[in-house]
Amino acid sequence: MPHIALPEGLPGISAGFAFRPETARPMRELAHILLHQPNSLTPGERELIATYVSSENDCYFCQTSHGAAAACHLGNAETVKQVKTDFLNAPISPKLKALLAIAAKVQKGGRSVTAEDVAAARRQGATDHEIHDTVLIAAAFCMYNRYVDGLDTWQPRDESMYAEMGRHLAESGYLKPSR
Amino acid sequence: MPHIALPEGLPGISAGFAFRPETARPMRELAHILLHQPNSLTPGERELIATYVSSENDCYFCQTSHGAAAACHLGNAETVKQVKTDFLNAPISPKLKALLAIAAKVQKGGRSVTAEDVAAARRQGATDHEIHDTVLIAAAFCMYNRYVDGLDTWQPRDESMYAEMGRHLAESGYLKPSR
Repeated sequence: MPHIALPEGLPGISAGFAFRPETARPMRELAHILLHQPNSLTPGERELIATYVSSENDCYFCQTSHGAAAACHLGNAETVKQVKTDFLNAPISPKLKALLAIAAKVQKGGRSVTAEDVAAARRQGATDHEIHDTVLIAAAFCMYNRYVDGLDTWQPRDESMYAEMGRHLAESGYLKPSR
Repeated sequence: MPHIALPEGLPGISAGFAFRPETARPMRELAHILLHQPNSLTPGERELIATYVSSENDCYFCQTSHGAAAACHLGNAETVKQVKTDFLNAPISPKLKALLAIAAKVQKGGRSVTAEDVAAARRQGATDHEIHDTVLIAAAFCMYNRYVDGLDTWQPRDESMYAEMGRHLAESGYLKPSR
């Protein structure tokens, strides 16, 4: 049972959003800009960063829903699994590996990111905008993950529900509830 | 030097906000709602939660600027220091101590929050809305802190600058840049 009286039947973050629509609005908007709006990083790459950080934070709801969105964008669920367990050997670009290494540091704490981490990403062609967005996606999921788990939201173990949610997020983004 | 080419002369998060105004807008709005808009928790209490979490995350800019905002609201800088080092013995209400204990758990990870932590806050009179906002303030500062430090922003050691910033934040909130 959630720690507070959240609306019933809404999984994960959607229950927190329904409980407090005022804070839901900027939180949805931030996710939409970072993950869905046009960017030199593809939506699939950005969802992989979100999924990886959520996995490191051990947030079932976020890693499964964003993992499903990533799989939908990439047309490939296997890569999502590999990124979570061993991104250095996943079939992704060297640039994305270097950005995931930065995201991994941010997940531990902002001060963990080194000039060498950033230089390594730049050597693979990452721009300042891409490095900025990687840091902020990783930081933002340290918020979303803690919000979802800190309220002890309902997180059903129903793969088809997450597949459906991932499809909806991949197609429509984050501004509106999926139902 | 910051990890990316941030606008010069802007301290801490304001440099990230100026670099990427699109994401700044919802991030400012979220802080404004959580810390500045009317709430059954006073602005001083909410700034203390933000300051405490920023201190646990070792973010100099955030703990100093929000600490200055808290001191301005409370008319007392000593309490802010005590909350950072030993909130259980600080001159604050038992309810705020119980909420800070929840925030401390969220800082470590959302899954650390227990039903007993929440029951303890309820026994001191905390409402569901207050518990929700405590979880979200703590979660959000795990984002802001990582954003500020993950970009290695300029964080001057100039106490009078932070006192001025704290006054501005306490009076005007978070929607607009302070300069």
